[in-house]
Amino acid sequence: MEQYFVNNIINSNRYTVDDKDLFKHIAVVLRHQTGDELFLVDQSKALFKAIIDQIDVDGKQIIFDVEKDNRPSTEMPVDLIVACSLSKKDKVEWIAQKSTELGAKKIILFSSKYSIMNWKSNIVEKKISRINEIVKNAAQQSKRRIIPEVIYYSSMKDLLKESAESKIVAYEESAKDGEQSLMAKELAKKPTSIIGVFGPEGGFAPEEIDFLKESGYTAAGLGPRIMRAETAPMYFLSAISFNYELQQLGDN
Amino acid sequence: MEQYFVNNIINSNRYTVDDKDLFKHIAVVLRHQTGDELFLVDQSKALFKAIIDQIDVDGKQIIFDVEKDNRPSTEMPVDLIVACSLSKKDKVEWIAQKSTELGAKKIILFSSKYSIMNWKSNIVEKKISRINEIVKNAAQQSKRRIIPEVIYYSSMKDLLKESAESKIVAYEESAKDGEQSLMAKELAKKPTSIIGVFGPEGGFAPEEIDFLKESGYTAAGLGPRIMRAETAPMYFLSAISFNYELQQLGDN
Repeated sequence: MEQYFVNNIINSNRYTVDDKDLFKHIAVVLRHQTGDELFLVDQSKALFKAIIDQIDVDGKQIIFDVEKDNRPSTEMPVDLIVACSLSKKDKVEWIAQKSTELGAKKIILFSSKYSIMNWKSNIVEKKISRINEIVKNAAQQSKRRIIPEVIYYSSMKDLLKESAESKIVAYEESAKDGEQSLMAKELAKKPTSIIGVFGPEGGFAPEEIDFLKESGYTAAGLGPRIMRAETAPMYFLSAISFNYELQQLGDN
Repeated sequence: MEQYFVNNIINSNRYTVDDKDLFKHIAVVLRHQTGDELFLVDQSKALFKAIIDQIDVDGKQIIFDVEKDNRPSTEMPVDLIVACSLSKKDKVEWIAQKSTELGAKKIILFSSKYSIMNWKSNIVEKKISRINEIVKNAAQQSKRRIIPEVIYYSSMKDLLKESAESKIVAYEESAKDGEQSLMAKELAKKPTSIIGVFGPEGGFAPEEIDFLKESGYTAAGLGPRIMRAETAPMYFLSAISFNYELQQLGDN
């Protein structure tokens, strides 16, 4: 069953969708009819089962009968931020989509020394707007309760604005030094918030790694194989989900 | 430093590359010169540091001085097979590339009831040949010691040819039933070989799940969020790498 985010709090057993885009998607593109069921998630992250009661074609509104649904949240039990150095357009969009499916709460894109792309200030808004759209769709498809936030930082130094109990920078040189278990050691502390920072295809400059280490980051390898820039954050998110959502459940 | 697979056993301190494609890539495309260093992996999975001694442009040969390199293997300590239902061309190629980066030893593509694509028998060879090329390149880039095997099965029943100590089919209905820890429980048994089977965008038919369960498969959820068909195998491989290569290392 499809799920859509709505821009209000739902606080009665009737709800009217009057967002033009959402009306068009549900009534025109997908041709839903009276009686069809779907999920709505409101601004308080509450989930509702919603049955179409009326489709007002002239007014471009859909009126739903709604009922709160109490199934467990699909959100990670840990606040996860992924910060990825800028890459080619399709890779950035892909990272945003997959990070959403894999449970990130915030997605940061930033410029670093060896980034193969830079966003000029006049295109940032357009780029972020397009990525927000991708992230919203991915959040709906994967049945998230929130839409992850997307941020752009033109300088790596801005990463210091982000606080988290555990700060990890993926660094393949660490793997070469045999430090492969540092990420597992960080997770074993069961932090309630984690930020993972990922470099571009060309990697981080040594001074960038030094800067992050001096700022409280652990430089951790993600296993012995070299991953592409877009693969490493997916590994990171998957490993954390496995650890927090499957293993710790198994511990009980 | 780049790495290439060669089709022989290297058993002296000199080695001649006479493969035309590899010659062209190293000498013409990348314009390597005498004295340049790279890695060669031979058919016995041994890694060698190789320095270009001579480039024979007329004979299309490169002669290397080679020395065995004893750094640890980059292969997973568990034999991993991923079997994915057919999907669109770019997704299949993407799954093959990422599965290689993430350590799969064998990649199986198969037809299932709700697969959105089917490969006619006359195009299978061409498709597999193209995917083999992608997998070989990904294996070189990620510094694997082997090139994963790629296989196509026109029927899901052919999956029974594959043996593994742990057999898992990703099934989101299991997640809905609260069975989220089954994959973690399977890994806790520390199997030495694992096969993971993944359905198409439309999911498996109930009778397909029944067939796999009757064949010894565990139907396991991969967390509470719905992942796209191509994301689920990446989650699976990343989680297993984390468990076998980072966590178990941390246990010691």
